[in-house]
Amino acid sequence: MKRTIFFNNKPKIIGCSAVAGPKESSGSIKDYIQIKLLDDMFGEKTFEKAETKMLFSAIKDCFFSAKKSESEVDAIISGDLLNQIIASTFSARNFSCGYVGVYNACATFTEALTLGAMMIDGGYFNNVVCATSSHFSSAERQYRYPLELGSTRPPQSQWTVTGAGASLISRNGEGPKIISATIGKVVDFGVLDANNMGAAMAAAAANTILTHFIDCKITNNEYDLIVTGDLGTLGSRIVKDLLWEKGFDIEKQHVDCGELIYSIKEDEYQGGSGAGCSSVVFNSYLMDKLKKKKLNKILLVATGALLSSVSSQQGESIPSIAHAVAVES
Amino acid sequence: MKRTIFFNNKPKIIGCSAVAGPKESSGSIKDYIQIKLLDDMFGEKTFEKAETKMLFSAIKDCFFSAKKSESEVDAIISGDLLNQIIASTFSARNFSCGYVGVYNACATFTEALTLGAMMIDGGYFNNVVCATSSHFSSAERQYRYPLELGSTRPPQSQWTVTGAGASLISRNGEGPKIISATIGKVVDFGVLDANNMGAAMAAAAANTILTHFIDCKITNNEYDLIVTGDLGTLGSRIVKDLLWEKGFDIEKQHVDCGELIYSIKEDEYQGGSGAGCSSVVFNSYLMDKLKKKKLNKILLVATGALLSSVSSQQGESIPSIAHAVAVES
Repeated sequence: MKRTIFFNNKPKIIGCSAVAGPKESSGSIKDYIQIKLLDDMFGEKTFEKAETKMLFSAIKDCFFSAKKSESEVDAIISGDLLNQIIASTFSARNFSCGYVGVYNACATFTEALTLGAMMIDGGYFNNVVCATSSHFSSAERQYRYPLELGSTRPPQSQWTVTGAGASLISRNGEGPKIISATIGKVVDFGVLDANNMGAAMAAAAANTILTHFIDCKITNNEYDLIVTGDLGTLGSRIVKDLLWEKGFDIEKQHVDCGELIYSIKEDEYQGGSGAGCSSVVFNSYLMDKLKKKKLNKILLVATGALLSSVSSQQGESIPSIAHAVAVES
Repeated sequence: MKRTIFFNNKPKIIGCSAVAGPKESSGSIKDYIQIKLLDDMFGEKTFEKAETKMLFSAIKDCFFSAKKSESEVDAIISGDLLNQIIASTFSARNFSCGYVGVYNACATFTEALTLGAMMIDGGYFNNVVCATSSHFSSAERQYRYPLELGSTRPPQSQWTVTGAGASLISRNGEGPKIISATIGKVVDFGVLDANNMGAAMAAAAANTILTHFIDCKITNNEYDLIVTGDLGTLGSRIVKDLLWEKGFDIEKQHVDCGELIYSIKEDEYQGGSGAGCSSVVFNSYLMDKLKKKKLNKILLVATGALLSSVSSQQGESIPSIAHAVAVES
């Protein structure tokens, strides 16, 4: 069984863009976000249409950032948290490129990056965009309660990021390089609380990071940063503990996009989550640091809780997954 | 812009399996289905759990058919129609392989085959399983009405296939070969009727088939069969008309898995549909004919309607997609 892939041709990320809502645009990475929204409706009538427009805008701006026209892009690989990933399919409707829909919950961004890097590295395509989105209000009403109910949120909960991010991967051009990827396996820690997804996802993150270290014959010191997707404060503590038990102390290198994105002060509690969380942080803050060579090598590990409201109602625990992508400046 | 991929190493489909419900197991391809269910609950308490078990069984039987143990399989690429593709994620939980979740509605099977063929052809993995499922009862209650309501179905509607299919693609071994693939783009024909998905998907199928012919510099005569996924009777007429207008008369080569799977006599109306439709027909009937060299070369074009109940309620039309995979005996 093989889970880690090495990209000999080192596909390059030549363009990126992040679109973020008002809360995300006033958090700790505000200076790096390319498109900041004044309100989370983005001029649309529904949350779902607003999310679609955010994803469309991130992809469009990503073309621009890579100095590529739409006709030069072969495929868009994207996914989101809405049922039947409609933010992705409806935004892809506006482009003439091929479309590949993916879903691994909040791990979708690194899933897309892995597939995109294969398409470029293998010589199948020349330019591919990888993108994901999420929206606090569309996620709350789909997964939890309508906002109008004013339900109280428990302290172990996270705040779904309103945002979208996109990366353009290419054979040619200048930009940070994707050097390897480890695909995740589905891990079930037995967590039943759908409000405590950080704990559920921590085991999957630990499994993927450990597999990556072993397959690449490296330790945590190989990377400047090991960036998990949206474990939040509690999940981050768990993943560090789990890896420490296996002999790897990632304390110095570890950051979590969910912990990073907000200046936690209100009811964000454990921090951000959502398919847009890692893609917004990667395509703004992290890409900026990589391009300026302030970071040399990072491991991005987006994490996803593979539940649905139906599976929870039927008494199921929460299977989780994490895909890791190594990027070099 | 590039949409067609040629696989120089010709990945081989060395194992396959199809699991089907009672209605599907008594239709025109009944003699080819590997696992036939006596009732659509498969010993489970809910339709969703039954669908998960079907998909799990198809994957497990596919390992067996390819004479591979679980530890030899690197990744499972799968998707289904349930919200958050839970049939796929919960069935993948039972395997130790890597997992890649995909979603392009009923076009998911050829999307998975395309990605799987890239992974093998590019040398990234050695053995990959591509699988999809759908279930009439879980789809009806999620997309339309609970069965208990006894709603009348309109004559343009199709019947979601209760079934799952899986193919094991490998670098080595014996079996039909994947020679090329054309990825679909999202096409919107402006159809607003969520009961008439055949018409919505026909335009996407025509676009992909035409692009495939042009990119490969071939005509319809290249193939023994051009097999669409689940256009049904009406959609099949439309795709033939659309291609005839472009100068390709596919009448002689065209069959549709949705038309093929049932002996239409009751309220299946236009025929079968669902992510399991093309995967059940391909992994039973078509694979049998390819293995016995009664078919030499076919083009499988699964078709998907990328709507959700939310998008329909918000007045949106139905964007569609089709991915084509060419298989040689």
